Amino acid sequence: MNSEMTSPVQVRRVTLPGGVAEEGDAVAREEPLEIRVEGRSVAVVMRTPGHDEELAAGFLVSEGVVKAARDILEVSQCPSTGNTHGNIVDVLLAGSAVVNWGSLTRHVFSASSCGLCGKTSIESVFQRFEPVVDNGFQVSAGFLAGLPSRLREEQAAFARTGGLHACAIFDEHGGMVVLREDVGRHNALDKVLGWALRQGRLPFDRHVLLLSGRVSFEMMQKALAAGVPVVAAISAPTSLAVEFAEGCGQTLVGFLRGGTMNVYCHPGRVTA
Amino acid sequence: MNSEMTSPVQVRRVTLPGGVAEEGDAVAREEPLEIRVEGRSVAVVMRTPGHDEELAAGFLVSEGVVKAARDILEVSQCPSTGNTHGNIVDVLLAGSAVVNWGSLTRHVFSASSCGLCGKTSIESVFQRFEPVVDNGFQVSAGFLAGLPSRLREEQAAFARTGGLHACAIFDEHGGMVVLREDVGRHNALDKVLGWALRQGRLPFDRHVLLLSGRVSFEMMQKALAAGVPVVAAISAPTSLAVEFAEGCGQTLVGFLRGGTMNVYCHPGRVTA
Repeated sequence: MNSEMTSPVQVRRVTLPGGVAEEGDAVAREEPLEIRVEGRSVAVVMRTPGHDEELAAGFLVSEGVVKAARDILEVSQCPSTGNTHGNIVDVLLAGSAVVNWGSLTRHVFSASSCGLCGKTSIESVFQRFEPVVDNGFQVSAGFLAGLPSRLREEQAAFARTGGLHACAIFDEHGGMVVLREDVGRHNALDKVLGWALRQGRLPFDRHVLLLSGRVSFEMMQKALAAGVPVVAAISAPTSLAVEFAEGCGQTLVGFLRGGTMNVYCHPGRVTA
Repeated sequence: MNSEMTSPVQVRRVTLPGGVAEEGDAVAREEPLEIRVEGRSVAVVMRTPGHDEELAAGFLVSEGVVKAARDILEVSQCPSTGNTHGNIVDVLLAGSAVVNWGSLTRHVFSASSCGLCGKTSIESVFQRFEPVVDNGFQVSAGFLAGLPSRLREEQAAFARTGGLHACAIFDEHGGMVVLREDVGRHNALDKVLGWALRQGRLPFDRHVLLLSGRVSFEMMQKALAAGVPVVAAISAPTSLAVEFAEGCGQTLVGFLRGGTMNVYCHPGRVTA
């Protein structure tokens, strides 16, 4: 964990009845990041500082703009002239990347839990990625049940602040490939995708994505952009997450707690 | 609770070792809603259906576009021609409402946890609302400690799905004024704001806002738009939420659990 992911604060800790103490504590950092593509502003996301280049790259993976490391020539930090609130990153694309500027520049502000800002019509909310193919990948229920404790061990910042979402990718042998934390769950997943893109690790087609919280439609869409066949979450999915996963061939597991879990669709990848 | 807030699903419930059952369950509904202002699309939000007119009105309160019930002439449901994914609402404004179209139409897509989509620069993320004034409003720590159980009693949909955020406003006598649930925390708060606007109940200047989850910067900004002096949350605030509250005169309480709580700023409104 990067110490910059948290900020120190002074709090008045009240314990009923009658206990009052002034104490130092830590909260998850939240600051705006402006993402530019070839100098044009395409999004402002409220994120936890750190891994900003990965976040920008992963954002473009989620948007379907880039698919391989070679699609990005460079991600650079811009000097924040006249901007005291946060930072700016600029992505320089290779000729191989296809940009729909009309769609992309409508991304404008993503709140800390928002990953897909920028669509003016309902249809444009839905990206077009290939469904997950059946490559025979399977994991056991016992394998999945063991993952949350692995996440908690590594999720140091959450332990300090209680305010960060985490995403982690595990390979079929149980190795944790990458873990990212952020105040925004979509940012955490975009950071994972951006890391993977730049490392040449996509698609994650024999991997499990573990999410610390709830699963919305956009999280499933981002997982699909990375080719992940199995998404497992500690908490609940939404109706549209389930529908999307069903239609795209993704196995969706929720309420992964202790030795129990709900498999919402494509249960064939989860063996007894 | 509206039964339309959840959708039935079939799940495979796995209980280690060896237990497998196919069961009916319910998940929180998530569907897109397109918000139009005088026929122009300004946002698509991923929300839980229900109270859509309130959501649209509250969205415009959060944006600083409307301040009183008279600023809105009508919120109407549009026929969803050619659109099978969700619904559309259109807001007709009175002459008293001042619209910055350049800013507003940059709102384009809000994910289920995003309330402030649509800003192309970091500065524009920050709205300008008046700070909370000191009107002598105070509540006791014991009063606050009693609120979470009240929320849980009323939060029927969460109990069924584990997937909905809730916001509630309490008056100084402990009366619950309004409660709204949504897959997106920003939507839940916008629904509260929209209800209050249309009922002529704003500002909530002698009230407490209780949040079921975490507190980001935007939640504090929405609370400020409603004039709420005390925001209390079951979970953690972010760094920017604390900074914003400090600067705007808001009392921010986090980790309100059992008989304990952290007061992050302006603790004078919380008495022993």
